[in-house]
Amino acid sequence: MSAVLLKRLAFQVGPNISENTFTLSSVSKEGHFISLRPFTKPTKEQEGFPFEWGFAGTKENLKAAPTKDSEGNVVLQQDFDMGFDTNVYLGIENTHRGVINTFWKTWDSGCLEESGKVFPFGKDKEGIPFMELWQPIDPNVKDMVMLEAGDGRFAPSSVRSVVFKVSAGQGYEGLIVVVGNWAQGYIAKESTKSAEGINFIRYYIEGDKASHYYTKFGSECNKFPTDLSSVSVNSTVTVNGLKWDIIEA
Amino acid sequence: MSAVLLKRLAFQVGPNISENTFTLSSVSKEGHFISLRPFTKPTKEQEGFPFEWGFAGTKENLKAAPTKDSEGNVVLQQDFDMGFDTNVYLGIENTHRGVINTFWKTWDSGCLEESGKVFPFGKDKEGIPFMELWQPIDPNVKDMVMLEAGDGRFAPSSVRSVVFKVSAGQGYEGLIVVVGNWAQGYIAKESTKSAEGINFIRYYIEGDKASHYYTKFGSECNKFPTDLSSVSVNSTVTVNGLKWDIIEA
Repeated sequence: MSAVLLKRLAFQVGPNISENTFTLSSVSKEGHFISLRPFTKPTKEQEGFPFEWGFAGTKENLKAAPTKDSEGNVVLQQDFDMGFDTNVYLGIENTHRGVINTFWKTWDSGCLEESGKVFPFGKDKEGIPFMELWQPIDPNVKDMVMLEAGDGRFAPSSVRSVVFKVSAGQGYEGLIVVVGNWAQGYIAKESTKSAEGINFIRYYIEGDKASHYYTKFGSECNKFPTDLSSVSVNSTVTVNGLKWDIIEA
Repeated sequence: MSAVLLKRLAFQVGPNISENTFTLSSVSKEGHFISLRPFTKPTKEQEGFPFEWGFAGTKENLKAAPTKDSEGNVVLQQDFDMGFDTNVYLGIENTHRGVINTFWKTWDSGCLEESGKVFPFGKDKEGIPFMELWQPIDPNVKDMVMLEAGDGRFAPSSVRSVVFKVSAGQGYEGLIVVVGNWAQGYIAKESTKSAEGINFIRYYIEGDKASHYYTKFGSECNKFPTDLSSVSVNSTVTVNGLKWDIIEA
C-alpha cells in the first residue's frame, strides 16, 4: 500500500453538508493512521479545544477489505477501532464508542467518498449515517495539490512513510505519522483526560526538518520529534525527555 | 472583481452526490464566463459528445447581487441567462430553458456551495434542486492548487483576464475566456445545431502560448486563438479565417 495524505472536502450528516475544518488524514505504508480536524474559524466556545475531532491508531486498529455495497458495487470496507479518540479521551457524551465500519468508493473525479454510520447513543440505538468526501493531495509538496483530479497529475511514485510511537511506561501515549513531507502527531497524558492532556502537531518538512507548523496545540509540543535526518526502524529517539519508538521508516 | 477559476468537486441532485467530470468554470474580471464539463471516463454512449454540459456567456448574461437565504444569511445570488448552452443548442428534451437563479455561499474551508433549482419540464412544473461544490484553484499554475483551503495559500494578487468573442456575421458564435494561464473556449456553427457544430477547447498557457491541451473537441479547433502575446482590448485577431473581437484584456 502506498502512503496517502487526504484532505477532507465535505462532511455530510443527514441533509446537511459543509466543511468548517482543515482536516488532513495521514495513512502510512503499513497502515498506521492519524486524522487531525482543526476548525478553520473556531468560535469563542471552541477556542479552548479548537478541533472537531482527532484520532489515531496503528495498523492493528485498522482492518481493510473489499466488500459489496447495496447496489452490488465493490467498495473498500475499512473498520477503525481507534487507538486514540478525542471524544473517548475527553469523555464526551453521546459520541460513538468502539469500531466504526466505513465504506469507500472512488469517484471518477479521483475523490474518495467515505460513508458509514456512527452510534452516538449506543450500538442498540439508532445509527447516524454520515458521508465524508476526501481529496488525495500530493504529500511531497507544500501546496494543496490535487491528485487524480483529471488533469493528469497522479500520485508521486515515491512517498516517504515514517511512524514514531511513544514508548510504553512513561505515562503518555502518542504517535506521529509522516507521509511525504507532511507530519501529523499527537501526545496524550494517560492520567489527565481533559484538553490539557492533549497535544497535536502538524508540520511540513524541508531538508528533513520541520519547516512550517500548521497546528501546534498543547503545552508539551516540544516533545514531538521534528528531525527526520537519521531515522531507522526499531530504533528510538528521545525528545525533551519523551522516548519514541520508530515503528516504521 | 477578480478573475476566478473554479474546479467542481461535487454535484448533488436530490440525495445523489457524485462527480464524474473534470469541470472547470472560468469567470473573467468583467464577468464573462464559460464552464466546460467533460466526462472523466465517458461511456460508449457518451463518446460522441463526451460532455455533461457546456455553457458560456458575456457579462450581459450574468447578474450578481447579495441576497438572504431562508435562514437570513447573506448569500450571493447569481442569475445566469446563458448565451450558449449545449442543451439548448442540441435541442435536448427535458432540460432547463431561460435564466437559472443560483445562490452561493462560502464554506469556512474556502469552497463555494452553489445551490438552485432547474426546471427541466417548464417553469410551471416542479423544479429540481441541485447543489454544486466548487474549489477555487490557482489560475496562474498548472497543477490544481487549492486556494483558501486553510493552509494559508490565498488567491494570487495578479491574475490575467482576457476574453475573445467571435465577430458577428460569420455564421459562428464563440468565446474564449482566459483566466491566469488557463483558457477555455467554444465555437458553435449557428446553422448546425448538432454535436458536429460544437468545438470546445481547454488549454494551459506558457510564455503567452498554448502549451498543453486538456480538451480539444470538434473539427474546427484550429480556429481558436492560442497566442496571447499581443492582445489589446477592442482589437481583432483572425485565426484560420475566423475573426475574433478582443472584448477584455
